[in-house]
Amino acid sequence: MTIRVLTGITASGTLHLGNYVGAIRPCITASRKADVESFFFMADYHALIKIDDPQRIERSRLQIAAAWLAAGLDPTKVIFYRQSDIPEIPELTWLLTCVTSKGQMNRAHAYKAAVDANLAEGEDPDANISMGLYSYPILMAADILMFNAHVVPVGKDQLQHIEMARDLAQRFNHLFGQRQDFFTLPEAQIDAEMELLPGLDGRKMSKSYDNVIPLFEGGEKALREAIARIVTDSRLPGEPKDPDGSALVTIYDAFATPAQRAALRAELRAGLAWGEAKQRLVELINSEIGPMRERYDALLARPERIEATLLEGATKARALAAPLLAKLREAVGLRRFQTVLPADAKAVGGGKPTLPVFKQYRESDGRFYFKLSAADGRVLLQSQGFDDGHHAGAWIKRLKTDGAAALVGAPVKRGDGVSEIDLARALSALTAAE
Amino acid sequence: MTIRVLTGITASGTLHLGNYVGAIRPCITASRKADVESFFFMADYHALIKIDDPQRIERSRLQIAAAWLAAGLDPTKVIFYRQSDIPEIPELTWLLTCVTSKGQMNRAHAYKAAVDANLAEGEDPDANISMGLYSYPILMAADILMFNAHVVPVGKDQLQHIEMARDLAQRFNHLFGQRQDFFTLPEAQIDAEMELLPGLDGRKMSKSYDNVIPLFEGGEKALREAIARIVTDSRLPGEPKDPDGSALVTIYDAFATPAQRAALRAELRAGLAWGEAKQRLVELINSEIGPMRERYDALLARPERIEATLLEGATKARALAAPLLAKLREAVGLRRFQTVLPADAKAVGGGKPTLPVFKQYRESDGRFYFKLSAADGRVLLQSQGFDDGHHAGAWIKRLKTDGAAALVGAPVKRGDGVSEIDLARALSALTAAE
Repeated sequence: MTIRVLTGITASGTLHLGNYVGAIRPCITASRKADVESFFFMADYHALIKIDDPQRIERSRLQIAAAWLAAGLDPTKVIFYRQSDIPEIPELTWLLTCVTSKGQMNRAHAYKAAVDANLAEGEDPDANISMGLYSYPILMAADILMFNAHVVPVGKDQLQHIEMARDLAQRFNHLFGQRQDFFTLPEAQIDAEMELLPGLDGRKMSKSYDNVIPLFEGGEKALREAIARIVTDSRLPGEPKDPDGSALVTIYDAFATPAQRAALRAELRAGLAWGEAKQRLVELINSEIGPMRERYDALLARPERIEATLLEGATKARALAAPLLAKLREAVGLRRFQTVLPADAKAVGGGKPTLPVFKQYRESDGRFYFKLSAADGRVLLQSQGFDDGHHAGAWIKRLKTDGAAALVGAPVKRGDGVSEIDLARALSALTAAE
Repeated sequence: MTIRVLTGITASGTLHLGNYVGAIRPCITASRKADVESFFFMADYHALIKIDDPQRIERSRLQIAAAWLAAGLDPTKVIFYRQSDIPEIPELTWLLTCVTSKGQMNRAHAYKAAVDANLAEGEDPDANISMGLYSYPILMAADILMFNAHVVPVGKDQLQHIEMARDLAQRFNHLFGQRQDFFTLPEAQIDAEMELLPGLDGRKMSKSYDNVIPLFEGGEKALREAIARIVTDSRLPGEPKDPDGSALVTIYDAFATPAQRAALRAELRAGLAWGEAKQRLVELINSEIGPMRERYDALLARPERIEATLLEGATKARALAAPLLAKLREAVGLRRFQTVLPADAKAVGGGKPTLPVFKQYRESDGRFYFKLSAADGRVLLQSQGFDDGHHAGAWIKRLKTDGAAALVGAPVKRGDGVSEIDLARALSALTAAE
């Protein structure tokens, strides 16, 4: 079975080497495994909770998208999109909001920590707390459930949010899923081996400690300057040095082969100068990061290509999100009016639920076509011409079976005035009836 | 100046005569005034807060939409839509959620009343309170601000929500509206003259008192039976009766001309039997409601026609909502990557902000066409052929000036794979640059 893994990418701030070693590199490696279907999204709706500076939002999103692509995220293998390009997500957020108990949000760690901080300062418990901060676990549940992810790699501080997503999934399934479960219950994946890189001063590398090595920004020069500032002991060149417990060595290890690791240790014990060791570290990191930095700069110079990549990702994501949302809307009662209840239909004398219809035909150009028409005759979907009637038939079959997911790459276009969601709903009604 | 009036219609329950006299009739009358642009929407996202029975949601929505149309709401004069057909509304809800303080939601009357009820029963303050109930004032603000309504007719219990919508509009304008205000501050309109119809027992007509006269359900028979149950005093036929303070007379007044009112009063004082008076009431109400009931039954028999009406309304509403949302997204920083900041563009060597471009041309068929292309060459919009180049030019001008609002009825179609929101954003970028 294919495991669906969903990774949210914080869309604010600039990236440092700790982000690369602790998150970007392992997540990209994991996305290359067989039997894994990976979703990566830029969590830009979340970024709006804390940042009201539009320039910062804009710049961060672009730089972070470029960084992940430069580091090797392959958008032809994974689905890579911006959260804010999927309008189905805020809609699902509202559906979930209606089944979320307020008590559950009261127990969220991030909210409770903010309340405690307010109380400690003698403030009103909710002082300066926005509804965004308070209710974002619901948005996060929508991010996950929208794609029925099996596994969500997160830090320990996010574990509770995955529990909440599971809980909301269960409640929704229970309330509305008489004949089927709509949502998969996601599992958190806390990677114990996820490396925490030390910063310049030996503490965890973090912007709040001002001890970071930048990933791409500032180029090789900034990398060299940062590494020069790594704190070491004061042993002179020629004096034997203890490699264990040195931040420099730990950072080196994160990029080195076992043989390289052993060699550096031996040289340090034999008296290698710290300055020389730093030079080796620059070279080692640069051998991995250097080519990525070139790709990063090239990507940033053509933002419209990143845009196109993300829009393509959004199209793939929406091909999955739209039919699921259509099912959920049906489940809660937000239905098209053609599908009246039999009881009502009898009471008012008529009106059986009518499904859209596929029709295959041949044009005067000798080619084979098909279209999908709504009950009222409106054309929802029009195919291009096929030389062979079997091909047209095969596409109809695929659309009937797979619904809107089959639209990606299908040789069809939507009818005039037909929205994506209308089409997704029509196809969803058909697949449900199959 | 045209006043934009937005009326939310509760999408749950069945309608009684009190709803008709107190809300439907006066709102429809008001929508016919000159210089008024009316928006009416079925608040079905709101209905999900209280109702987890999909059949009930479905049936109520259909019956209530049919009732308003039958009662004379003219969908060619007003914009009549379902809230849940406007995906821009949940998205705006999230943008507003990020600027809403939690303290403000804590002060909402409906929430406070629920907390008080819990405390009175010794329960946890938030017992059985959903996040839907807690945060719905934000959704309501999105309903109103999405269309920049000037006036929102509401009951007194909703006054606070309009204040909240004003407050959120001001906060958003202040935070993000450096050069322009995005939102109009809405005014509540509490209609003091809005009639409260008494029920069968003389108290306010309300389902919770079980004293209602149904509007359409059950036909004339149900109307007659309900009226037969109106409580009167025990004076016999021939005895003089006091018309004042009689529920029957007050209900009669709601449908009668001044002359009819005076006549009934005189007859009662002269000894008219209550049974006879009830018969006159049935006839009077039926003279107004009867033709509507026929239209109601005809509408219910063809739900797909109501569907088409509401979808047309949604198209009109979205032609306004999409460009505004595009502006708001731009304002908070959720921007297309082609529009890099000049500072960034310089740093990475190139990439000036590029706008989509209109191009007019003549085809080999001799006709005039235009298209709108994105910076990357993708066709966003393609016109049909015009016999006259001036017509093509006039449409380009309209689209440049009015943006997506000009799309309604425009002889154009979207390019392959171009979503409504993409197109709206492109046009919005152009109108902003004009």
